[in-house]
Amino acid sequence: MKFRSLTMTLGLICCVVLGALPSVASASDPGPYPDAKASDPAALGWMVGAPPPTDRIIRFDDGTYFKFPQWRWSVSNFRQLMPTTNVSRGTSNPSRLEYALRNDIDSIAFVPTGGAETMTWGQSLDKNYTDGIIILQRGRVVYERYFGVLKPEIQHGAMSVTKTFVGTLAALLVAEKALDPGRKVAEYVPELAQSAFGSATVRQLMDMTTGIRFSEDYANKDAEVWAHAAAGNPLPKPADYRGPRTYYEFLVSVQPEGKHGDGFHYRTANTDALGWVISRVTGRNVAQLLSEKIWRRLGAEQDAYMSVDSVGTPFAGGGLNASLRDLARFGEMVRNGGRYNGQQILPAEVVSDIRKGGNRDDFAKAGYKQLQGWSYRNMWWVTHNANGAIMARGVHGQALYIDPVAEMVIARFASHPVAGNAVIDPTSLPAYEAVARHLMRNAKR
Amino acid sequence: MKFRSLTMTLGLICCVVLGALPSVASASDPGPYPDAKASDPAALGWMVGAPPPTDRIIRFDDGTYFKFPQWRWSVSNFRQLMPTTNVSRGTSNPSRLEYALRNDIDSIAFVPTGGAETMTWGQSLDKNYTDGIIILQRGRVVYERYFGVLKPEIQHGAMSVTKTFVGTLAALLVAEKALDPGRKVAEYVPELAQSAFGSATVRQLMDMTTGIRFSEDYANKDAEVWAHAAAGNPLPKPADYRGPRTYYEFLVSVQPEGKHGDGFHYRTANTDALGWVISRVTGRNVAQLLSEKIWRRLGAEQDAYMSVDSVGTPFAGGGLNASLRDLARFGEMVRNGGRYNGQQILPAEVVSDIRKGGNRDDFAKAGYKQLQGWSYRNMWWVTHNANGAIMARGVHGQALYIDPVAEMVIARFASHPVAGNAVIDPTSLPAYEAVARHLMRNAKR
Repeated sequence: MKFRSLTMTLGLICCVVLGALPSVASASDPGPYPDAKASDPAALGWMVGAPPPTDRIIRFDDGTYFKFPQWRWSVSNFRQLMPTTNVSRGTSNPSRLEYALRNDIDSIAFVPTGGAETMTWGQSLDKNYTDGIIILQRGRVVYERYFGVLKPEIQHGAMSVTKTFVGTLAALLVAEKALDPGRKVAEYVPELAQSAFGSATVRQLMDMTTGIRFSEDYANKDAEVWAHAAAGNPLPKPADYRGPRTYYEFLVSVQPEGKHGDGFHYRTANTDALGWVISRVTGRNVAQLLSEKIWRRLGAEQDAYMSVDSVGTPFAGGGLNASLRDLARFGEMVRNGGRYNGQQILPAEVVSDIRKGGNRDDFAKAGYKQLQGWSYRNMWWVTHNANGAIMARGVHGQALYIDPVAEMVIARFASHPVAGNAVIDPTSLPAYEAVARHLMRNAKR
Repeated sequence: MKFRSLTMTLGLICCVVLGALPSVASASDPGPYPDAKASDPAALGWMVGAPPPTDRIIRFDDGTYFKFPQWRWSVSNFRQLMPTTNVSRGTSNPSRLEYALRNDIDSIAFVPTGGAETMTWGQSLDKNYTDGIIILQRGRVVYERYFGVLKPEIQHGAMSVTKTFVGTLAALLVAEKALDPGRKVAEYVPELAQSAFGSATVRQLMDMTTGIRFSEDYANKDAEVWAHAAAGNPLPKPADYRGPRTYYEFLVSVQPEGKHGDGFHYRTANTDALGWVISRVTGRNVAQLLSEKIWRRLGAEQDAYMSVDSVGTPFAGGGLNASLRDLARFGEMVRNGGRYNGQQILPAEVVSDIRKGGNRDDFAKAGYKQLQGWSYRNMWWVTHNANGAIMARGVHGQALYIDPVAEMVIARFASHPVAGNAVIDPTSLPAYEAVARHLMRNAKR
């Protein structure tokens, strides 16, 4: 039945798109993709015209939106491809972003990881298929660029950067004593008692140290990631579909693998389970809570939004879309110890707990070659580099980089043809460090 | 095939929902519906819980969203039910709405049309299943109420109020000499040459005096409204579907009926065709143009959004969703002769052309018993009452009422169980006039 196979494909695609890929699991050969200039979505004119030319139409239902270079348009237009729920900024004025633009950033040179020749910051942007990037120093915008179809007012898919927002909300609830990280997941969500999650602690969810069977091996049609994707697909299920029909139904079915607490395993389902815990504790879904606890208080310039499954559950593992400046505002708030827009948005203890990081031995077991010495805490990536930088990371190049010593925040959206950050990190992590060094040497007070 | 019938049903529902019903065509018996209090969507807890209880889940794909009282939740949550495109307010601060709230509105009494006993304004709100209503006098908010799940920051379906925005954009383009109302539609959109629209003038589209076959008789399965709905349905089409696949494909198929210019005939397809003309002339779809020409310039407090078909064409005939305050801002701008937020947003001549109205004899032929003496111009309803009030109107009680003499603007969103305004007008049109009289007598400077 043609419809069925199509829907199943969509389920898959939907999941891949929205961030289920672990950051380095797909470090495959980048293949013969057109470069940033040749794949520029504005130049290619996707979805322009009344109607657009046939070969410039991008649809959700035939999977064209996930092809490359169409993908470069899709990441800034998810709401036009699927149902979404709003993350309201409320009714107030946006908080004011101060500008102190400087023209010496593009020429900053760095050596890509594993490379020999230097590259400039300006060159790295195309290399990484950057859609938008902003740099704040001491809260002031020193650099801001948009490419392709992204604009300041457009929300871009944050992919697994979503997880960092969800982990931060959980840490906030812990600080508020609304959530006990030592309690078992099943105590909050009895429906998960028979799943692998039930016996894990909330802290193990928050730090992704659960022992669950959740393969993100897309080459294996029996991998759990397929069932997760099909469950979360908001399109009508085919009549003969027998699998889980929502994210929650999928989570209930997750089986154990290994032991809880036995090392860091980056698995998207943990964040979805954490989202369920959060929703049960607060009576709000993660989109509503994100609006209430963070978006409104930041003075966000734009609403954000999240993709949802067929019963309105936001995709906690990867469904957030936000504007670049608002991602930077969030980063600046964390850099400031939780304070922004005239108020303490996160308790300082939440931020210090994130910066302190997780267990580095646990992290090392995951074998990320480029992330040696890092850890993972409250769904933040903690570099433990000389400046103590922390990151939020999503597939295809989404990143939030906070350097407390350089007093610097970098927010980046991208649409790299390859999902895994292992392909992207060599030209971004050393670039961020180079900019930090440059700004520290050349600060303008 | 079960899937097919479901999709066809959805197509229908989608169309009904989004405003295709003429304002009085469905003046059927309101039936045994629960009243406003009993159908309060917040009290009923739709889509609350993780997951919501089975009997509190609202879906697009099974049609529950269109049932009553579920409908009262759906009208404030369309983006969670279907793909949408943004109408950006830009990046600026919202324009400031001044408040001069007064407490003497609820007790204003009026006699409903055709009734004998008086009713108070306060009583009329429940009678009309009001979700939100705001009254401005001389630009200041004198009254504002929200019910159920609507809030100031939430966008509500505007239904056919959408048409008024599209007609206003066309009138603006005419004033800018970008669009010649005397030219034939086919000169702008050659694809429409063989359809009934091709030989009509742009002005005939704008005033709905085309001679086209477009039955909105939902009881007749061969009515054109079904094909229109199926074409615009954003869900994947069944494999054996052979009809038009987009709004534009549908418009190309529209056949003539009667003569162009021979009376006013309220038919949604005219607005969709006008949207096509506008898009061809400007290179932007109506959502993009609405953002550029109106939303950003008003200093809207919230983005608006529009539903789209499978190739991203916004539903010009009824797909707009906006916040109540922003609808009021638009009304206030028109009341002010096109000026708002420190700038001339519409040329004064556009507003005076709307206020002057259309041909009242043409209008009379349509036989609206409660709207005697009215006319229709640039997709505005012109009352020609003593104060020269003009209106935008949408099914289920959506309304924008501008009274130039009382210097008053009323914006209302509602979720009446009956679509046709003929059921709603008796307790709203005289209520608006009563408030106007009251404010004129009791103005506070």
